Amino acid sequence: MAASSSTMGKVIRCKAAVAYEPNKPMMFEDINVAPPQMSEVRIKMVNATVCQSDLYFWKGKDVAKLFPRILGHEGAGIVESVGSNVKGIKAGDKCIPVWQAECKKCSKCKSSRTNICDTFVFNWGSGLMPSDKKTTRFTRVSDGKPIYHFFGISVFSQYTVVDEACVAKINPNADLSKICLLGCGIPTGVGSAWKIAKVHPKSTVAVFGLGTIGLAVVEACKVSGCSRIIGIARDEEKLARAMEFGLTDTLNTKAFNKPIEQVICEMTEGGMGVDYSFDCTGDPGIIYSALECCTPAGGVSIILGLVESSQVVKFHPGVLLWGRSWTSGLFGGYKGRTELPELVERCMKGHINLDHYITHHLPFSKINEAFDLLNQGGCIRCVMDYDK
Amino acid sequence: MAASSSTMGKVIRCKAAVAYEPNKPMMFEDINVAPPQMSEVRIKMVNATVCQSDLYFWKGKDVAKLFPRILGHEGAGIVESVGSNVKGIKAGDKCIPVWQAECKKCSKCKSSRTNICDTFVFNWGSGLMPSDKKTTRFTRVSDGKPIYHFFGISVFSQYTVVDEACVAKINPNADLSKICLLGCGIPTGVGSAWKIAKVHPKSTVAVFGLGTIGLAVVEACKVSGCSRIIGIARDEEKLARAMEFGLTDTLNTKAFNKPIEQVICEMTEGGMGVDYSFDCTGDPGIIYSALECCTPAGGVSIILGLVESSQVVKFHPGVLLWGRSWTSGLFGGYKGRTELPELVERCMKGHINLDHYITHHLPFSKINEAFDLLNQGGCIRCVMDYDK
Repeated sequence: MAASSSTMGKVIRCKAAVAYEPNKPMMFEDINVAPPQMSEVRIKMVNATVCQSDLYFWKGKDVAKLFPRILGHEGAGIVESVGSNVKGIKAGDKCIPVWQAECKKCSKCKSSRTNICDTFVFNWGSGLMPSDKKTTRFTRVSDGKPIYHFFGISVFSQYTVVDEACVAKINPNADLSKICLLGCGIPTGVGSAWKIAKVHPKSTVAVFGLGTIGLAVVEACKVSGCSRIIGIARDEEKLARAMEFGLTDTLNTKAFNKPIEQVICEMTEGGMGVDYSFDCTGDPGIIYSALECCTPAGGVSIILGLVESSQVVKFHPGVLLWGRSWTSGLFGGYKGRTELPELVERCMKGHINLDHYITHHLPFSKINEAFDLLNQGGCIRCVMDYDK
Repeated sequence: MAASSSTMGKVIRCKAAVAYEPNKPMMFEDINVAPPQMSEVRIKMVNATVCQSDLYFWKGKDVAKLFPRILGHEGAGIVESVGSNVKGIKAGDKCIPVWQAECKKCSKCKSSRTNICDTFVFNWGSGLMPSDKKTTRFTRVSDGKPIYHFFGISVFSQYTVVDEACVAKINPNADLSKICLLGCGIPTGVGSAWKIAKVHPKSTVAVFGLGTIGLAVVEACKVSGCSRIIGIARDEEKLARAMEFGLTDTLNTKAFNKPIEQVICEMTEGGMGVDYSFDCTGDPGIIYSALECCTPAGGVSIILGLVESSQVVKFHPGVLLWGRSWTSGLFGGYKGRTELPELVERCMKGHINLDHYITHHLPFSKINEAFDLLNQGGCIRCVMDYDK
C-alpha cells in the first residue's frame, strides 16, 4: 500500500465526523490522527454503516455523555501501519475493527464459554485508548485538544487507531462495501441464533422486533433449518420486509386483544410455545412475553434489546422451573479476532445474504444524512463510502 | 417372587400412612390397593425416605390441599405385578418409582433437550392416576372411599400402583436401603450440576442452602473436579457438615455486613465471581444474590429452591448482557426411566456416596417420627424400612 510507506510513524491529517454535542449534526472536519503505539493498529477506513447504538450515544442517552467524540463501530478498512509489538496483522491487510476486544491471552479468551476478555473489559463510557486508559489518538487541528474515541474503535474517521485486540484480520478478497456490515448488528443477531441459542433444525422460533439484529436472527434461523420462524412487530412494513429474510409467520401485536405470548403458544404444537425466542426490542414487557412464549420444557429466551437503566423485569422463578433458560450475550457470543473472520467467510459463501440489509448508499461526507435515515425508520443499513 | 404369583390380579390389603388433614399425624392403617390397569405397575415398597416436598403438601401449603392422601415420592421397591400392556418391566424387578414421568414416545421424550414428557405432564395438584385422570387405586377398608395419590407414585404405602411411565427399572444388585434416596433430592442436586449446569473441571461454584439438594450439588461438583466450592448458609452446623461433602470454603451470611455476592466475587480470580451458582433456598433475595455472584462472562445460575407463589424476583436485563444464564430444571434434568438407572450405576460404583446422606433409620410404621426429624432440622435423610 502506498499509504503505509509514506505515512508510517507520522501524524495523518484526514476528515472525520466529530460529534460536539447531543443531537446536533456532526462536524465533517479535519483532524490529526497520531501514529499507533506499540500494541496498536492504524486503519484506513473504506466503508462503514450506522448502528442504533451510534444514535443512542449521539443523542446523549448514556451516563458519560463524552464530547467531542468520533462515533462509529460498524465498518471495515485496510491496515495503514502497526505498532512495534503487533504481530498478527500488517499494513495492507483488510480488517474489521471490533469493539468486542480479544487479547487471546487471558483465561477467558482461552475459554470457549465466553467472548468477554479480562484484559480489555468493554467500557461504554470510556473515550480513551484501552492500552493506557489515559490518551486519545485524535486531536483537533485548530488547538491540538483531544477528541474522544468510541467503543475503542471510532470508525467515523478516514483513519482510526485501535488496539491490536480490537481488530479482526479478514479474507483479502472480502468486498469491504458489504463486509463492513459485520462490525456489530449482523454478528449480534446471527451469533445469538447460532452460538448462544444454538437453534437446531426443525425447531420453532419467535423474534420480537425486526430491525437489523432481529432480521439477522431470522436469517440465521432460516439457514439453520428452523421450521417455523414467527416475527412479531407493530409495523406492517417491517413485517412484510422480514418475510424476505425468512419469516414463516408474521404477528402484528396491534391485531390481538389477548397477550401475544398466548397467541404464539396456540400456534405451536401442543400449545407449549416455541423452542427459542429472541427479544430485539429492549421493552421489559416484551422481554417477559418472549420468555413466556418459549416452551417451559427447555425453551431458551435470549434478550438482545438494551433496556433503559430505570426499568426492571419481574418474574416468579416458577416460570423457569421446567428448564427454561433466560440469557443474553454481547456481539452474538463471537470472539472478535478468532471467530469473526469465520463469519466473514460464511458471508462470502452466501450463507448470509448481506445485500438485502443494504437499503441505502451515501458518501462518508454525508454521514449526517445517514444518521437521519436510520433515525427515521425505513433504513436497515446505509453503507458509506470513505473514498467519495 | 412369591408375592407376585399369589396376589396378581387381586386387591392387596396392606398398611399405608394416610394423611387426613394438614399438619396432623398420618394414620398408619390398612388400605386396599387395586390391581394395576393395562399400563400400570404395582410395586411392593421396600424402603423410602421423606423429602421436604412431602412436608410442604402435608402442611397443606399447596393450593389443592387434597386429603385423604398417601404422600411419599422418594423410595424403592420390587415390582409385584404389571398390567397387560406393560413391556419394559416385570414382577420381581427392582425399581424406583419416579414422579418425573417418561412415556418414551412423545417428541419431548425423544429429545435430549428436556426431561419433560408431553404425555404425562407433571401435575402437583392431581391425586388421580395419570392414565385416566379420574380414579385412584387406593381405597379405605372401612367404607371403600378413594384415597388420593401423590405425585403419581405415593410411596408411603406397602404397595403402590404407578403408571409404567413412572417407574425406573434398576440394577437387580442395587441395595434398596440406599438406592431409595435416588427418588428425588439427590438426583435433583447431582443432575443440576452434571446435566443442567454441566460444571467443568477446575471451575468455581457457589451453593446457597445446604440441605439434601445443596449437599448433592456440592458432592457432584467435587466429583467433577471443581476447584472451589463455596457453601453459603446461616447455620454453622450445616456448613461444617457440608465440608464432608466437598465444600472448599464456607460462608456464614451472618458474619458479613456487606452483600454476600460481593464477598463471593472478592474471593474469585479477577473479582468477577464464580462460574456456576446454585440457589437451594427458594428465597427471592438469595436467588438474586446467586445470580450476581456468578461471573457476568458466561456464568450460569441455577434456581432449585421453590418460591412461594406470592413472591417475585426483580432484575435489570443488563445483568445478563455479557452472557450470564439463569435457568432451573425438574429432577436435575434426568429422564426418569432412561437416565435414572445410569445414576443408580454410578452410585453403586461409589461416585456418589449415598451413606453420608443417611442420618437416621426407622421402621415404616414410625413415619410420623421421620416427618418430625426432617421438620426439626438435623436430619438429612431418614431411611424407612417397610419390612419392619
